[in-house]
Amino acid sequence: MADPDAMVLHIRRLAVRGAPLIGVAAALSLASYAEDGATPDELRRAAAHPRGARPTAVNLMWAMDRMSAILDGGRCRHDVVASDLVAEGEAIFDEDVALCEAMARRGLPLFGDGDAVLTHCNSGGLATAGVGTALGVIRRAWEAGRVSHVYVDETRPLLQGARLTTWELARLGIPHTLITDSMAAILLREGRIQRVLLGADRVAANGDFANKVGTYGLAVQCLHHGVPFHPVAPWSTVDLACPDGNAIPIELRDPSEVRGQGGRAWAADGTACFNPSFDVTPASLVTSMVLDRAVLTAGELAQGALGSL
Amino acid sequence: MADPDAMVLHIRRLAVRGAPLIGVAAALSLASYAEDGATPDELRRAAAHPRGARPTAVNLMWAMDRMSAILDGGRCRHDVVASDLVAEGEAIFDEDVALCEAMARRGLPLFGDGDAVLTHCNSGGLATAGVGTALGVIRRAWEAGRVSHVYVDETRPLLQGARLTTWELARLGIPHTLITDSMAAILLREGRIQRVLLGADRVAANGDFANKVGTYGLAVQCLHHGVPFHPVAPWSTVDLACPDGNAIPIELRDPSEVRGQGGRAWAADGTACFNPSFDVTPASLVTSMVLDRAVLTAGELAQGALGSL
Repeated sequence: MADPDAMVLHIRRLAVRGAPLIGVAAALSLASYAEDGATPDELRRAAAHPRGARPTAVNLMWAMDRMSAILDGGRCRHDVVASDLVAEGEAIFDEDVALCEAMARRGLPLFGDGDAVLTHCNSGGLATAGVGTALGVIRRAWEAGRVSHVYVDETRPLLQGARLTTWELARLGIPHTLITDSMAAILLREGRIQRVLLGADRVAANGDFANKVGTYGLAVQCLHHGVPFHPVAPWSTVDLACPDGNAIPIELRDPSEVRGQGGRAWAADGTACFNPSFDVTPASLVTSMVLDRAVLTAGELAQGALGSL
Repeated sequence: MADPDAMVLHIRRLAVRGAPLIGVAAALSLASYAEDGATPDELRRAAAHPRGARPTAVNLMWAMDRMSAILDGGRCRHDVVASDLVAEGEAIFDEDVALCEAMARRGLPLFGDGDAVLTHCNSGGLATAGVGTALGVIRRAWEAGRVSHVYVDETRPLLQGARLTTWELARLGIPHTLITDSMAAILLREGRIQRVLLGADRVAANGDFANKVGTYGLAVQCLHHGVPFHPVAPWSTVDLACPDGNAIPIELRDPSEVRGQGGRAWAADGTACFNPSFDVTPASLVTSMVLDRAVLTAGELAQGALGSL
């Protein structure tokens, strides 16, 4: 029998990561558990479990809500429930693919002719079921000749930029340069980056958003240097129940991730560390937010445009 | 015979690092070479060699200038030259110790009562012959009860903060917390840091200064969040021949330092990287600069105060 707890472990360990992808993966894992004959009670327990695995990305809660609605829908026969769950899991997957393409279409007009862009963390094919959120927009813009070069923040502590984004860009043949997170400011000052695009793990109703730690600092750098700053997110990342950034829970992870990398430490064992996995960027620092349904400016976000999409 | 080329290698590999310390170490290495019987020609060649080892920190050039002046001073007897070189090398060492204490005295009045401070890279006893530049000021302020906690930027790519500064602070018993460079912005926004102190590798006549990469971005964060920002440097780091930051040469190091750490890579071998070892911060972002001779505000620096010290 498929073990949905194994998926929770994969998500907690970041073997599966990226806000959209953890929602898709948890939904498909639950569907597979149902196909393997899990009882309605087992399925309900399994649907509740992933919610605590990573508290910041709201896509996970959104996907589990959809699956739970099927479970609670009152179908009596187990095989019907199982096939409905499989259909819903596959729908979530297919919708994510389509959301990525919609964001890419919405984002394309932002670019000039051969822009150099900077991105943080990984928001591509390894973070979604499709081409990605921010990296999907960048990829399609590169294919259209509107992006010429991608600078990649390595994204300490877990180095998703260095490990995952460079791998995706190399595979796609998109020219790129890896930098440490502390080097972005120099490139922004020198005018070598025309815009910054990155993902989001939860967008509050007022447009404040949580994303990988380092995003807020980058937004401040963009403001100072007059470089446009664009978070990119599908509708499944928007949480209208969250009024603003203060209401977004921020996951704190183990200090060992800051003391070293991949099991190797360069600071002493007992060294105290601060290790929030995400930070919150206020909507006021956003030039425009690229969603699958619209591209919204800071002013539009402040006027509650997300609530009326 | 002492091999001064070995010291050049140690400096290039950063086994000896920190702007003041590489000047002191290169001077003492030359003195030891003279004591071991090197000829005047050998000594002149050896004095020229370290200048290229690391182009940004001016202390190295300053120390070699002092040693070369002795060599060119016209003494005929080899044993007299050797003993003069030893005396000059020891003077450079002793002066560095005294400069550190002078900076610490000048810097003390900056602090409130139990400030939390942030520092970048390593500017302590492992970077100087004495208690340090910025970390020396912090240490003496902690001993005086004026500093309560030190946040330490890990300082990618070479992690001098994680490897060296946490080691020094632990040894001194000073409470500290290690963060990735990208986390400083959160702490500054939350008011958890009262001021930022860090070293300098070269200060231009107008007060612009080069320091470990990441310093410029931190200065921008301090401006945005209204947190005082203080570079700390001895007189040997000031280069009045350098009119402004544009004239400071910036060392570019091997991309492998960005692709991984300590021989272990997390990005693919061929990945292009940008790897400047330093960046330049304009004097306008300085709240005040702590020197052994004075504490100068941005306004004073702009008015050429460094030239009249």
